[in-house]
Amino acid sequence: MTNTGRPAAPPMTNPRADRVKEVARLAGRPARLRQGRFLAEGPQSVREALALHSARHAAGEPEVIEELFITEECLDRHAELGLFEGQPAPRLVTEEVLAAMSSTVTPQGVIAVCSFVDVPLEAMLASEPRLVAVMVEVRDPGNAGTILRAADSAGADAVVLTSSSVDLYNPKAVRSTVGSLFHLPVVIGADLELVLTSLRERGIAVLAADGHGDVDLDVLQEGSARRRLAPATDVDSPAGEAQLEAPTAWLFGNEAQGLPDAVLKGADHRVAVPIYGRAESLNVGTAATVCLYASARAQRLS
Amino acid sequence: MTNTGRPAAPPMTNPRADRVKEVARLAGRPARLRQGRFLAEGPQSVREALALHSARHAAGEPEVIEELFITEECLDRHAELGLFEGQPAPRLVTEEVLAAMSSTVTPQGVIAVCSFVDVPLEAMLASEPRLVAVMVEVRDPGNAGTILRAADSAGADAVVLTSSSVDLYNPKAVRSTVGSLFHLPVVIGADLELVLTSLRERGIAVLAADGHGDVDLDVLQEGSARRRLAPATDVDSPAGEAQLEAPTAWLFGNEAQGLPDAVLKGADHRVAVPIYGRAESLNVGTAATVCLYASARAQRLS
Repeated sequence: MTNTGRPAAPPMTNPRADRVKEVARLAGRPARLRQGRFLAEGPQSVREALALHSARHAAGEPEVIEELFITEECLDRHAELGLFEGQPAPRLVTEEVLAAMSSTVTPQGVIAVCSFVDVPLEAMLASEPRLVAVMVEVRDPGNAGTILRAADSAGADAVVLTSSSVDLYNPKAVRSTVGSLFHLPVVIGADLELVLTSLRERGIAVLAADGHGDVDLDVLQEGSARRRLAPATDVDSPAGEAQLEAPTAWLFGNEAQGLPDAVLKGADHRVAVPIYGRAESLNVGTAATVCLYASARAQRLS
Repeated sequence: MTNTGRPAAPPMTNPRADRVKEVARLAGRPARLRQGRFLAEGPQSVREALALHSARHAAGEPEVIEELFITEECLDRHAELGLFEGQPAPRLVTEEVLAAMSSTVTPQGVIAVCSFVDVPLEAMLASEPRLVAVMVEVRDPGNAGTILRAADSAGADAVVLTSSSVDLYNPKAVRSTVGSLFHLPVVIGADLELVLTSLRERGIAVLAADGHGDVDLDVLQEGSARRRLAPATDVDSPAGEAQLEAPTAWLFGNEAQGLPDAVLKGADHRVAVPIYGRAESLNVGTAATVCLYASARAQRLS
C-alpha cells in the first residue's frame, strides 16, 4: 500500500485510555528502562527521529519509531511527518490526548515513541572517531542536551555519557538536543575507566575541560595555528603539549563540582577555557562548545 | 561606628509586613520601573553587587545596594556578606520572610535591593570599548543573562540591550548573569539605530551573528591567525574582509527569528558560526560565546 501520509483510523479521543497512559509513563525512568523506549516530542525532534528511522529502514537496520501520535492541526502544518519512507503510519489524536501523553505543559502537536538509539562503546570506537565528547556526572538534563547539540554542531563523531550522568532519554534532555540525539552515535551508561582505557588504546588524546586546568585553550589554539601556518617558527610549543588537531576526546564534568580529581589525574591534559573578564566560571555547556569548536577548527584546517 | 558585620536589630519575622511585600513586588517590571530598583538574590550575585557597591563607595560614586536582607544561617556561612566597606548593614530575616521576598522557589538566604546599575550609551562609548555585545530582541531572560556572562568571560568591554530586548533586571535574567551584571558596563533600552550610528562613528566594526551569514567565523579566525603568524602568506584575505582583531561590536538576535533583515543589512558583515555536523542551528547563547571568544582571542594575540 502506498503511504499517503494521511491516517485512515479516526482520532483517539480518550485521554484516560490505557494506551495513552502507557505513553505518558515514558516520562519516567522506570517505565523507559522496562520498555526500552522513550519519547521524542515536537515537530523538529520527531522529524530528525523519522529521518534516522527512514535511513535505517532503507539499510535494513533496526528502526527507531514504534508509534507516532499527532494532532490533525500539526499534521496539516507539517505534512512531511507522514511522508518518510518506511515510517509507521501516524495515528491521529485530539489535543487532549496529546496533552495527556506529553511530558510538557506546552505539547507541540506530535509525539514519537522511539526505541533506544544508543550504541555500544565498542561499535562507536570501531568507527574510528577523531572527536568525541564525554560527559562525566553531568546531572542537568538541559546541560546534557546542550552539550550533545554542541557536539553535533561542531561535527564531533560521537558522544559518551558515563554511568553517573543524567539519563539522556529524560524528556527534557531529549528536548534540549533539538534533534541532535538522532544525528550522531551516542553511548550511554558507560564505565568511565573502560572509556578512558579504550580511547587511549586507539591513540585518542584525553583532554579534561577544567576551569582550574594548567593548560590554556587559547595557547593550544595558537600552537595549532602556528604548526599549520608558520611551522618554521614553531619553537614555543613544548614537547608533550596537547595538539588540538590530533584525535581527541574531551571530558566534561559536573555542573557544580567539575570533574573528579581521579579523572583529572587520569586525563592527558587539563585544559581551561581562559576567563578574560571577571566572571568566575563558564557554565559547562558553554565551555563544552568553545572546546569542541576549537578542536573542530584545528582538525579541519590542519 | 565600626562595621562588625553583625546586625544589631532583631530578625524581621512577619512575612506579611508591608516592607516585605514591597521587596517582593520588585519581581515585577512595573514596580522596578517605579522604584528604579531590582533584586539580586543568592550569595554569589550579592557578593558581586557588594564588591561593586564598595568600589563605588570608595570612589565617591553612586552606590548600588540600598537594603540587604539575610538569614542568620546564610550570614554564618557567608560572613563576608556583612564585611564590605561602606555597605548597608545586613538586616536579619527569618527563612519565611526571605521566601516571601524572593522570586524563586529555592531562595538562597540573601537578597539585596539594588539601584539600577546600567549606564548611558554615551558614557559606555566614552570608555573606548574594543569589544561590545549588543542584544537585539533577545527575549528569554536566561539567554540574555548567559550572553552577558559570556561577554564578561570573554573580557568584553560592554554589553548593550536594545529597547526591544528582555528587561535585564528581571530576576531570572539577573540570576543567569551569575554576578556578571555587576562586572562590566551595561546599556539597556538603547535605540538600535543610535547604537549602530554611534559605534560606526567611533570606527567600531559591526558584525551580525547570523546562522545564514555569508561570512564563516572560522575563516575570519584563520585570516586573523595568518596576519599574525604568517603575514607574508596573507594573500587569501579579500580586501574589506572583517578583521577580528579590530574593535568590534557583535549583534545577537532573537532566539527564534534571529536578527531583523534591516539590521542584517545595516551590519558591516553577517557572520555565521559554521555548523560542521547536522544540527540545524546553535542557540543564541552558545553562538554568542563562540563569537565573543573568537574576537577576544584575535584581539589579545594580535
